[in-house]
Amino acid sequence: MSHATTPRRLGELATHVGGELLGDAGLLIQGLNGLAEAGPGDVSFYGNTRYRRQYEATRASAVLVGRDVPAREGMALIRVSNPHLAFARLLKLFDVWERPPAGVRPGAHVHPEAHVHPEATVMAGATVEKGASVGARTVLYAGAYVGEAASIGEDCLLYPNVTVRERCQVGSRVILHASCVVGADGFGFAFDAEGDNGPQHFKIPQTGIVRIEDDVEVGACTCIDRATIGETVVGRGTKLDNLVQLAHNVKIGPLTLICAQAGVSGSAEVGTGVVLAGQVGVVGHIRVGDLAKVGAQSGVAHDVEDGQIVSGSPAIPHREWLRASAAAGQLGDLLKEVRALRRRVDMLEKEKGG
Amino acid sequence: MSHATTPRRLGELATHVGGELLGDAGLLIQGLNGLAEAGPGDVSFYGNTRYRRQYEATRASAVLVGRDVPAREGMALIRVSNPHLAFARLLKLFDVWERPPAGVRPGAHVHPEAHVHPEATVMAGATVEKGASVGARTVLYAGAYVGEAASIGEDCLLYPNVTVRERCQVGSRVILHASCVVGADGFGFAFDAEGDNGPQHFKIPQTGIVRIEDDVEVGACTCIDRATIGETVVGRGTKLDNLVQLAHNVKIGPLTLICAQAGVSGSAEVGTGVVLAGQVGVVGHIRVGDLAKVGAQSGVAHDVEDGQIVSGSPAIPHREWLRASAAAGQLGDLLKEVRALRRRVDMLEKEKGG
Amino acid sequence: MSHATTPRRLGELATHVGGELLGDAGLLIQGLNGLAEAGPGDVSFYGNTRYRRQYEATRASAVLVGRDVPAREGMALIRVSNPHLAFARLLKLFDVWERPPAGVRPGAHVHPEAHVHPEATVMAGATVEKGASVGARTVLYAGAYVGEAASIGEDCLLYPNVTVRERCQVGSRVILHASCVVGADGFGFAFDAEGDNGPQHFKIPQTGIVRIEDDVEVGACTCIDRATIGETVVGRGTKLDNLVQLAHNVKIGPLTLICAQAGVSGSAEVGTGVVLAGQVGVVGHIRVGDLAKVGAQSGVAHDVEDGQIVSGSPAIPHREWLRASAAAGQLGDLLKEVRALRRRVDMLEKEKGG
Repeated sequence: MSHATTPRRLGELATHVGGELLGDAGLLIQGLNGLAEAGPGDVSFYGNTRYRRQYEATRASAVLVGRDVPAREGMALIRVSNPHLAFARLLKLFDVWERPPAGVRPGAHVHPEAHVHPEATVMAGATVEKGASVGARTVLYAGAYVGEAASIGEDCLLYPNVTVRERCQVGSRVILHASCVVGADGFGFAFDAEGDNGPQHFKIPQTGIVRIEDDVEVGACTCIDRATIGETVVGRGTKLDNLVQLAHNVKIGPLTLICAQAGVSGSAEVGTGVVLAGQVGVVGHIRVGDLAKVGAQSGVAHDVEDGQIVSGSPAIPHREWLRASAAAGQLGDLLKEVRALRRRVDMLEKEKGG
Repeated sequence: MSHATTPRRLGELATHVGGELLGDAGLLIQGLNGLAEAGPGDVSFYGNTRYRRQYEATRASAVLVGRDVPAREGMALIRVSNPHLAFARLLKLFDVWERPPAGVRPGAHVHPEAHVHPEATVMAGATVEKGASVGARTVLYAGAYVGEAASIGEDCLLYPNVTVRERCQVGSRVILHASCVVGADGFGFAFDAEGDNGPQHFKIPQTGIVRIEDDVEVGACTCIDRATIGETVVGRGTKLDNLVQLAHNVKIGPLTLICAQAGVSGSAEVGTGVVLAGQVGVVGHIRVGDLAKVGAQSGVAHDVEDGQIVSGSPAIPHREWLRASAAAGQLGDLLKEVRALRRRVDMLEKEKGG
Repeated sequence: MSHATTPRRLGELATHVGGELLGDAGLLIQGLNGLAEAGPGDVSFYGNTRYRRQYEATRASAVLVGRDVPAREGMALIRVSNPHLAFARLLKLFDVWERPPAGVRPGAHVHPEAHVHPEATVMAGATVEKGASVGARTVLYAGAYVGEAASIGEDCLLYPNVTVRERCQVGSRVILHASCVVGADGFGFAFDAEGDNGPQHFKIPQTGIVRIEDDVEVGACTCIDRATIGETVVGRGTKLDNLVQLAHNVKIGPLTLICAQAGVSGSAEVGTGVVLAGQVGVVGHIRVGDLAKVGAQSGVAHDVEDGQIVSGSPAIPHREWLRASAAAGQLGDLLKEVRALRRRVDMLEKEKGG
């Protein structure tokens, strides 16, 4: 069950998700849960036939199902076109999170020349530097930092210990999870063999910014470096998981998902609606096309075409990778086999010659 | 040598670790060190015959050794059943760390409705929100954050800039290293092709919590996401290294070790006494069995049985992987060899036919 | 264009980089940019013939080029020996960053027994503990933490939410990016099958420190663990990218570059002028020699000789890896081919015998 909430009638829930109710509209629902975990008073969802057994065994009082799922004896159903999405909408309905009251709390560090909207909340221990702006209904938790002349839009959440460095721009309805870092210097150096104190890596000033568009979510401890010149961009509605690295001048299109511990190197472009699975690496200066998918732990060394699915390190088309990785486990055997074949061919040749 | 400490007699040390002393109990010991680095006045340890040369050459005054190691001319020995563990115990004995005095310091942000034990320490710049509780002898350093209704047990250390979000539960004797994040939202979205402003990833509220059992250690910048519904769990005595990712609804059993930069995807289960080496990835919804071991950089895509050792990406039994990766370096040669064989077989067939 | 700056004459810029100017010294330059992005009023650079097309098409007013690049109709050139380095120097010249005024701000937490140089800046929300020292012109941003008896040299930048734990030593001109962690405990445990409350991982006290030499840069959310005994060291002029892990007792030589999400395990040594690409893993207790290069996502399991280039997981010489990974995509085909050969050889042998 989700945390303590107000019970609601099943009819209300069906209406909320635009679903067709098969069952008692007056049934009292306490909360939501997965098929296996749900009990009486819970609503669950069944969106994938892989979970048919769990669906058949569930103890939920009602289940969100697809439009074509048949009625079921003794269980209420709500038919919708996307059960997963409908479940998410109900979870949101039941969610009781309350924005903390607006205002700058004692113990917050807000520069007199910062622009904090009166409906924004700045908690004790948060910092807003000179010339920075914070939009309406945005909340800055303790340790959140908004650097000089940076701007944060409306309805954003900056969780504890988030850093947004100077001049970076964050849109509206953006969620920055704890300890993420927006706008640290890109990793750029020019080797100087004749520095004043011997050879050195001369730091290339990182004079650009990060621009995060609306409706983006940035995971905990994720790092998005500012551009050397110009902008590093995260497009509208894109979601970054935890511990992701985006290097300087990277451009991520809208509606893309980047899973935990993936990294994108300098000046690479990732298109619209892409999925980078966990621990993927993308080298610099290439493009991953729109709607492409990259399998977990893959290393992308070359452009990926729109819609392509790739895996492996270095990444190759996913089908080839499946075959190759199935074969990889047999490599030892293959080696033996080839040696045996060689001996047999040696023998055949010798006998023929003899 | 360990940092400044009080010297102790060798006899006292032997007693402390329950060892058999071969040598002068009155010898004055200043500190501890590795076999190669130790000098006069130091105790070292020798627990693995791989280090026999270093053992023979060490300048330590005394060495912790196994029960069956023979006496040695001119060097004190302490025989114990586990030299590595005994060494750790002595390091702890010499360690001079002092808990800062109890109390809430000026500059700490403690909500009036928070429950901070009078023997706890809350340093300047730390935050405890409404309804949160902090147990006896627990220390919160600057920038540590305990969210609404979260609970922290006794004898914990929350290093600087740690975030524990609302309602999460942390047991006793837990160490949370700097900038780790407990309870950020899991990475969950339902695709909504018909959002009000076009297609969108609809955020699935993450209404659950993280529960960390007693005696757990969480590394710096490690992220443990809260459950969508229910709990993400880290079992008793489990140790997580730095930069580890645990996704929503993951369950980690007790006494498991997860090395740096490893990641475990949503709803995966990792058993008791498991070792995940560095940079390992585990996909979602699978189980890594008790006492399993996963080699560095491996990608675990399927269930791992109890006690199994696997390596590679995708992970296969370790022995197979050893053979395959030895063969991998020879792949180019193998390809050539097979082409040569084909030509020879072509020739044999032609001659036979001719 | 770089952010708002004062325009400068081209002649001044040529002099600043010690270059030979072919063009109008009085030309007014507004800023700098890449070849593709530059427009009138911008200086760009051309250092690699890969970008020849962009060089030919650029709309920049002037370009930094190598000493042997011929004069070009209608475009000013500045000939230098290292165009990339000269560009970096000009970026720095145009960069307008101003150190915040010196002093300890209200809201900073500085222990009365800390040693903060009067020319240092400690912003609100930063912490300097007892016995710690902070050198001249060093800036501590909000949330930066300097632990007991730690020392920070001159001209350093500690960005928001950086943690430097007790007794660690940081040299001069060091940049610590946001949320990096210096001196967390190393990941060291001795298994104790007979603990008071059952089996446990007994924590090995991590009594050593981290020592960071001069001119080092440490990326955001990068973690450098303190030594068990002695020092973890990052050598002079070495640069670490974001989300890097350096375990206890690691020694990194001077002038080395470690890219994002790479990790180095306990007691490993990395030499001088090494490059570890992104997501590399290095196992413990080995040595990566001077000037070695390790390809992205590689897993280094054995010593790497000075100057060697390795790739792959496990890492092998780069040339072998190139051949092997080209072959890897063909593994499925190879397997088929070998099976076909076997059948043909079977047939040949049968016929011969028949």
